[in-house]
Amino acid sequence: GGGPGDPELITVRGRRLLAEADVVVVDRLAPRVLLDRLDPSVEVVDVGKVPHGAGPTQQQISALLVDRARAGKRVVRLKGGDPFVFGRGGEEALALAAAGVPFEVVPGVSAAVAAPAYAGIPVTHRGLAASYAVISATLAGGAPADLARTAAAADTLVLLMAAERLGGVCAQLIAAGRPADE
Amino acid sequence: GGGPGDPELITVRGRRLLAEADVVVVDRLAPRVLLDRLDPSVEVVDVGKVPHGAGPTQQQISALLVDRARAGKRVVRLKGGDPFVFGRGGEEALALAAAGVPFEVVPGVSAAVAAPAYAGIPVTHRGLAASYAVISATLAGGAPADLARTAAAADTLVLLMAAERLGGVCAQLIAAGRPADE
Repeated sequence: GGGPGDPELITVRGRRLLAEADVVVVDRLAPRVLLDRLDPSVEVVDVGKVPHGAGPTQQQISALLVDRARAGKRVVRLKGGDPFVFGRGGEEALALAAAGVPFEVVPGVSAAVAAPAYAGIPVTHRGLAASYAVISATLAGGAPADLARTAAAADTLVLLMAAERLGGVCAQLIAAGRPADE
Repeated sequence: GGGPGDPELITVRGRRLLAEADVVVVDRLAPRVLLDRLDPSVEVVDVGKVPHGAGPTQQQISALLVDRARAGKRVVRLKGGDPFVFGRGGEEALALAAAGVPFEVVPGVSAAVAAPAYAGIPVTHRGLAASYAVISATLAGGAPADLARTAAAADTLVLLMAAERLGGVCAQLIAAGRPADE
């Protein structure tokens, strides 16, 4: 997990492993400036997926990781945020496990919590919010999520992949009982 | 935010600010080994609150931060995990703002996501879980949270402060419709 954007918000461990990598496979949303410090001998593979654009499939990315690992390379898979928070890290972990490739997961700071923090909004606050939920407003394949179920779920809601249909998202949440002035 | 425990899971920025501190005010759950690397001239104040034990109140902690800052010291408030995920960081930020003390928040990796990750459980997974909720099972003052409301909240539930009454927590979730074999 490369963290929410600021290159200093990767973990110490993440940065150390990056400095020891032979191959770095990087996403579109990973903090790109981290790549500037790599030794020129490091192979950097950009698998950044452009929204609505063509890019390698998840299967191709997983196959690449397995291929480089089997060639004896030390591979770092650099993602934005945390690999298990809408990062599809689980799918890549399954592919590595199926191929018998040893790996470790290094968590990262997710923008789901850090972005509100930088906006001055703690996702929990004593007496006000004792829970928070992180929800993808858009499901795999592009379908809108059913927000009625989750609207009352937690005190603080963090909605990801909602910007393109923010009006609809707000209307759904208000219809499900969230205050309009929230 | 000091991260979930491993001293290498603090952010690069967090560790750098720690190395530049005059005063470090530290919680019980912060990664203590980080303190070993501090210069002996750094003042370390332990405000660790023992469960059910006596410790400084939140007001006293906030007053200490303001006092040291007003004395011209560079103060780091080191917490476990992320300061805004059940870390009471918001209360301290309000106290600093009210006192006119400039501050910044450095997010951290929360155990709410990292602990499941190390147990092999991604909190989201394509096709299985498009949302997760982080819920305190015990409210301020010790009262149990109403989990019926949140049981259906999100695909993955992460419950904090639940260990002491795990049986009751599970029974509440099952009664509210979560599968018993989950």
